[in-house]
Amino acid sequence: MQQKNINKADDFVMKEKNAVAIISGGMDSITLLHYLVKKEKLNVSPITFLYGQKHSKEVSCAKEQALLLGCTNHLVLDLTSFKPLFAKSALISSDLPIPDIQEVMGDPQPATYVPNRNMIFLALAMAYAETCEANNVYYGAQKHDIYGYWDTTPQFLASLNQIYQLNRKSVISIQAPFVNYSKTDVLKLGLELGVDYGQTWSCYRGDDFSCGTCATCAERLKAFANLAITDPLKYAR
Amino acid sequence: MQQKNINKADDFVMKEKNAVAIISGGMDSITLLHYLVKKEKLNVSPITFLYGQKHSKEVSCAKEQALLLGCTNHLVLDLTSFKPLFAKSALISSDLPIPDIQEVMGDPQPATYVPNRNMIFLALAMAYAETCEANNVYYGAQKHDIYGYWDTTPQFLASLNQIYQLNRKSVISIQAPFVNYSKTDVLKLGLELGVDYGQTWSCYRGDDFSCGTCATCAERLKAFANLAITDPLKYAR
Repeated sequence: MQQKNINKADDFVMKEKNAVAIISGGMDSITLLHYLVKKEKLNVSPITFLYGQKHSKEVSCAKEQALLLGCTNHLVLDLTSFKPLFAKSALISSDLPIPDIQEVMGDPQPATYVPNRNMIFLALAMAYAETCEANNVYYGAQKHDIYGYWDTTPQFLASLNQIYQLNRKSVISIQAPFVNYSKTDVLKLGLELGVDYGQTWSCYRGDDFSCGTCATCAERLKAFANLAITDPLKYAR
Repeated sequence: MQQKNINKADDFVMKEKNAVAIISGGMDSITLLHYLVKKEKLNVSPITFLYGQKHSKEVSCAKEQALLLGCTNHLVLDLTSFKPLFAKSALISSDLPIPDIQEVMGDPQPATYVPNRNMIFLALAMAYAETCEANNVYYGAQKHDIYGYWDTTPQFLASLNQIYQLNRKSVISIQAPFVNYSKTDVLKLGLELGVDYGQTWSCYRGDDFSCGTCATCAERLKAFANLAITDPLKYAR
């Protein structure tokens, strides 16, 4: 009986060290990956989604960063067959242009919203966690996301975690350690951790150079400006 | 102003008539599809998932039934690249045999459990509903499912519906009209609606004939026996 308890405790510690992290290849999720590996010393299985996004070059960054950090268990899921689900999003449809930041300010659901994307990504990451015997799924939601998307709020996260408590065997939690961080806070932490932001991608337009004017470019540039440093990426303007 | 309100109401009625239904090709979901089209007179966009299941012949049944009912908007999503997520389920892995019903009775998470499958399927169906401008997503969970799977309970459904209320633009509900029905109740309704159960598939083993001994065959046969009728499918024993 005593032996059994010790084994259970060991098993628990082992699972506590296993984590799944959703990484897109952008600033927030790549900083998160460095944080989990270097600071939290977790055994991270990253998961990345190719879903027909115009800026699919973010996926190459995710792959390189996972390799750099020694995460051999990186799963890149091809969801490009999901186009009929996501056809109305400007992130995917070639008929819909990516808006500049001024066009989306204050919009509760901007054109770049992808229907139910975060729920889908989290659901897939939770399945991966069951398979990897991980107790936690991490994702890089940060404070600013909340204004644009309903599925990044602390309330969304808390409610979803309650549902996942119903799982009878694998009780896994979703963690968003940056949910109260600004993008500037994330960048500051990443620089301390030695992240090479030249190996991350944010621009929704996905051209050779970053556009500098879409919402994600604008937020990224603001974070670099707040710390009075230069973004290593090249910008069209 | 008046005109605007009338348009809004029309728009609401239109969306109320649009529905997405998850159909596997099994008894419950095919009965559900007939019910929604014939009784509820809804404009149904069915969605079906090919996820590496051994019994993928259920998908052919789903396709034929959708065609029969005039649902031209049937989306069959290929999730076979998800194998790394589902590798530990006997429904998918060729290394794991499908258990007979006696082996799974009382097991809170039988070998046929697929990690987080229902959450994933519902999340995808909800995205499809946003794209189809449907206000409701239907799925065929019935009373008996609850014993085997955490993600078919009324509590799971109620909590998930609460989360989806957070969506700022498309408020969509998940409906499971058979959640308090036994499989016998479902069969009875389906027979009234004229469902051809020879064009449905249940057996997890997916061989030429239904095995008659896996959990889903056993439940199916019990429902037919309860109504003292013969299942039109052929059984190995």
